[in-house]
Amino acid sequence: MTTPSNSDDIFWMRRALAQAESVLYTTAPNPRVGCVIVRDGRVLGEGATQPPGGPHAEIRALLDAQARNETVEGATLYVTLEPCSHFGRTPPCVDAVLAAKPARVVVAIGDPNPLVNGQGLARLRAAGIAVTTGVCVEQALAINAGFISRMSRGLPWVWMKMAASLDGRSALHNGMSQWITGPEARADGHHWRARSCVVLTGMGTVLKDDPLLNVREVETPRQPRRAVVDGLFGIPESARLFDGGPVIVFTAREDAAKAARLAAKNVQVVVLPGPTPGRVDLVGMMQWFAQAQFNEVHVEAGAGLSGALVAAGCVDELLLYLAPVLLGDAAGMVRLPMLEHLDAARRYAFIDSAQVGADLRLRARVEGAWRTLMQRVALPPIAS
Amino acid sequence: MTTPSNSDDIFWMRRALAQAESVLYTTAPNPRVGCVIVRDGRVLGEGATQPPGGPHAEIRALLDAQARNETVEGATLYVTLEPCSHFGRTPPCVDAVLAAKPARVVVAIGDPNPLVNGQGLARLRAAGIAVTTGVCVEQALAINAGFISRMSRGLPWVWMKMAASLDGRSALHNGMSQWITGPEARADGHHWRARSCVVLTGMGTVLKDDPLLNVREVETPRQPRRAVVDGLFGIPESARLFDGGPVIVFTAREDAAKAARLAAKNVQVVVLPGPTPGRVDLVGMMQWFAQAQFNEVHVEAGAGLSGALVAAGCVDELLLYLAPVLLGDAAGMVRLPMLEHLDAARRYAFIDSAQVGADLRLRARVEGAWRTLMQRVALPPIAS
Repeated sequence: MTTPSNSDDIFWMRRALAQAESVLYTTAPNPRVGCVIVRDGRVLGEGATQPPGGPHAEIRALLDAQARNETVEGATLYVTLEPCSHFGRTPPCVDAVLAAKPARVVVAIGDPNPLVNGQGLARLRAAGIAVTTGVCVEQALAINAGFISRMSRGLPWVWMKMAASLDGRSALHNGMSQWITGPEARADGHHWRARSCVVLTGMGTVLKDDPLLNVREVETPRQPRRAVVDGLFGIPESARLFDGGPVIVFTAREDAAKAARLAAKNVQVVVLPGPTPGRVDLVGMMQWFAQAQFNEVHVEAGAGLSGALVAAGCVDELLLYLAPVLLGDAAGMVRLPMLEHLDAARRYAFIDSAQVGADLRLRARVEGAWRTLMQRVALPPIAS
Repeated sequence: MTTPSNSDDIFWMRRALAQAESVLYTTAPNPRVGCVIVRDGRVLGEGATQPPGGPHAEIRALLDAQARNETVEGATLYVTLEPCSHFGRTPPCVDAVLAAKPARVVVAIGDPNPLVNGQGLARLRAAGIAVTTGVCVEQALAINAGFISRMSRGLPWVWMKMAASLDGRSALHNGMSQWITGPEARADGHHWRARSCVVLTGMGTVLKDDPLLNVREVETPRQPRRAVVDGLFGIPESARLFDGGPVIVFTAREDAAKAARLAAKNVQVVVLPGPTPGRVDLVGMMQWFAQAQFNEVHVEAGAGLSGALVAAGCVDELLLYLAPVLLGDAAGMVRLPMLEHLDAARRYAFIDSAQVGADLRLRARVEGAWRTLMQRVALPPIAS
């Protein structure tokens, strides 16, 4: 049995999405999920996915209802992602939902995880529960684009953070770049670092800025991994990055002795030579990330690596902070092969523009990549 | 007597501003003014400034009320700019307002024209009419920034239209630039041409694109003047620009014979040498525009002239169309002297960002210039 969605459904699903957003920094490699249980316009219980090993959103919401002495039988349960139907680190959520006997379950998007993939919904339907799908699909996908991408494409969702002047300059000709954008934009950038699974940079940035690449400007109980692309494996072993926290160095050159010394500093060295000598296989690196359960990659690199990632088709989204300033003759944002025709340029679609302090944050994404994910999370309306 | 503004005042002033916006293309060199006459929440009459020589907004609104058989006595009159108190091409509006005996007049901004400058309001007050000032000041100034700038600074309000990729490139290395942005952005650009008094470009653009510089993509009964900066007076006499419509060429080099030949084509040649040999005095050119009653200058030029105007402090506002595309190694937007420090960069403040087709239109302005105008239109609350 399927019932259509309505404006009430959108209202409550937004509340479930807000639950999911509240755990943006903590659930990786699991998806961020929110759940709200409602009867007659009243919330009986709600919750969000806990850190790995902890309960998922549905269980949290059911426990919350229990703690409030509410019975869920006959109520409507809103959940931002199809409930899981398999044993992972925790038992299947769909069993707990079935036991609670809601009359209706509303789901935003399907879970393309081959262990779920519609089976959760099929079991609900078999038990006579009314199921509505496809409420707030875009928003639900945006929260978990990384998880969905890993499950459906075998690739993480990759965004590239850049900061530049209005005329697209990221540094003066003398290399001076700190700070083109203001403190609010920097803090906002750290929010994006915090939600990612890994912060990726290039060797040029390590040499120029010696960055820590950790999350500082926003509070988070979890630090993303840090990674450097260093084709020739020339990275100084004294880099500030090697502070004892886990780091990955991708390189095209074997050096067992250096790798062993770095391993003592909690650095994993991954040798991934690409077709060009001395260059890392960037697509292979992204596949490696997905296999290692990294959902979202936050790139924060110079014009060289940024351009190489764009040219290799590895970037799904641009996160661009524009300062209201003109710099004129200065360093560009991305180094790309010269184009002879505008048709050959890499095209994106704007999805957001927001003022952040004095600066503007623009987001644009590769429409094809997004459409692929949208197709993979679409749940056909279920016939009764 | 002064009464405070309230939310009703804002509502009706917005309607008067909409009247003013409806004549954006036609009133130059006069300001665009809107007027609405209201009693008990009902419009008695409304109108906007007609083309030069025609009636001003207040007269139009009074005539409209007359045509509807409404009496204005005791009503409230909203007007976006202080009513004029001098004889120009038409008699003073303040006389007509006084004769209609409204109980109250609400004015957005003062008119810094030395022939008005508070005298209009003083005469209303002397007649016992309640006057409220300062409603929707920013919006009212934005509609007439050019007129206000000319009256108060002896300079036009200058915006610079640019189109670029996300990484600030305005053309490929081979010069290909048509079209980085889409048709909607181009049409929007023509709207800005249409409202301006003059469309200004440089010799580089004439040689590269041989543009017409007229308004084509939006309907307008008036074409703005067209002007070219051509320091060495090398402009080809066969340029498409010289189509019989009026054109101004600013140059640093005298050539009476060429000037005479161009005059026959309706081209005015203005010799304005600057301190650098072969270069036009750009600040002098802007003063010339103001003296010739040009309110708003729309710059649409290449990186050379654009950079020179920015460096000379001639640009008040940036009108930037960003295409969601990365071009990498390609031509920049503005050529500016190299900077050694970010503090030396030209700073603007974002005032608007809007999606236009697939592109984004950003507007940013020089805060100091705007503040100067704000100060000149501020009307002190009038004590009773």
